[in-house]
Amino acid sequence: MKNVSSEIGTIYGIGLGPGSVDLMSVRADRLIKSCSFIAFFRKAGRPGHARQIVSEILPENVKEYAMEYPTTTEIPLTDPRYKKVMTSFYDECCWHLKSVIESGEDVCVLCEGDPFFYGSFMHIYERLRLEVPIEVVPAITGMSAAWTATRVPITWGDNILTILTGTLSEKKLFDKISTTDAAVIMKVGQNLGKIRNAITLAEREGDAFIVEFAAMSNQFVCRLLDYTKEVAPYFSIIILHGKAK
Amino acid sequence: MKNVSSEIGTIYGIGLGPGSVDLMSVRADRLIKSCSFIAFFRKAGRPGHARQIVSEILPENVKEYAMEYPTTTEIPLTDPRYKKVMTSFYDECCWHLKSVIESGEDVCVLCEGDPFFYGSFMHIYERLRLEVPIEVVPAITGMSAAWTATRVPITWGDNILTILTGTLSEKKLFDKISTTDAAVIMKVGQNLGKIRNAITLAEREGDAFIVEFAAMSNQFVCRLLDYTKEVAPYFSIIILHGKAK
Repeated sequence: MKNVSSEIGTIYGIGLGPGSVDLMSVRADRLIKSCSFIAFFRKAGRPGHARQIVSEILPENVKEYAMEYPTTTEIPLTDPRYKKVMTSFYDECCWHLKSVIESGEDVCVLCEGDPFFYGSFMHIYERLRLEVPIEVVPAITGMSAAWTATRVPITWGDNILTILTGTLSEKKLFDKISTTDAAVIMKVGQNLGKIRNAITLAEREGDAFIVEFAAMSNQFVCRLLDYTKEVAPYFSIIILHGKAK
Repeated sequence: MKNVSSEIGTIYGIGLGPGSVDLMSVRADRLIKSCSFIAFFRKAGRPGHARQIVSEILPENVKEYAMEYPTTTEIPLTDPRYKKVMTSFYDECCWHLKSVIESGEDVCVLCEGDPFFYGSFMHIYERLRLEVPIEVVPAITGMSAAWTATRVPITWGDNILTILTGTLSEKKLFDKISTTDAAVIMKVGQNLGKIRNAITLAEREGDAFIVEFAAMSNQFVCRLLDYTKEVAPYFSIIILHGKAK
């Protein structure tokens, strides 16, 4: 990779995959091991999950830019103030990243999962894509790790697979779950009760699995029927498998 | 990995990802570089796409088992004879793979894409999973490579993503495309006309992209509106992106 020079650098949006360092791609591994500047999102006061995934392979003396999400827990997602706070935050991140690459240095932005699949990096990408060089490295999604963890294939033949988020309404979840062969439900966390109701109503409760921390050292898999928690960890995914016809 | 010994070996179902050798995972790369026996599916008379992806990293003197799909072009998919021919074929593959691991050797089964996502390996897995040690390594899906190739993120916020195959009926494709935020349509090939009709009917023709050979050296991306072929190559994926709300 280029180092400080008169040319503009490149922003690499690097998918890290589901959270195990050896499930990163060979390309991501190579880019990170040879980089001089990394950036990553994290909650304030936390080490940052993306940063932790790669900690053992980072070069010595790598420069780091932690993009700390603003505290928004007291602002509802629907409040216009929420959007405003997040917009300023992403604008500031872009300003900072741009200043780094304008000095001629490349930046690797570490992205959990696949950068273009429900990722925070997309907010950076959409702001800067027409202005500066950006390369995106796809990755293994958390959902691939989750269905692999259940030890049951997800889709056969012409099965339809629907990807949903637990933030949808119970009715929407029910409508979609009752008209698909296979489903993946992301962003489970506090939405577990609502998702469980929708799955039960669609008479798929016997089929569902929940996976906590797929592909990480604390991975846990069980049937949803046997899962007694009322709130699941943030890194949880619910899987409804398709069937061979 | 174990070599010939008195213990039973392990079957590794290794996802190779979308087709670029450096988009394989570090784990897949390590397992393949140290293996003594590989197996892979291919059409009779062809080198085999999975085999080609890894050709530059295979150890010298690796033993190979090509699982050649039986010629079924003259039997319709709905004909019971088709199922019978494929069942015997997968049974034979399993018998052979089992004999290898019973000699104490591990086998790496090379799988295009992610093994549990519309993969032929699933037929091996389902037959042997309760009998012998099998480990599955997830991978970057062809669809992740395809949406990355379009240079537009696929899903934002609570976007619903529906994965469809071109083998579905035009009506089913229309129903699903007209009620989702984002869609991926796999298995395009000869089904292009039908898919195009469904997308047009759903008034999404301005949004759609087609990607041939995502992440491979001959990758080609364009808007579906600008795509003039009547039949697409087998490795083609159609993408309808979600939008930030």
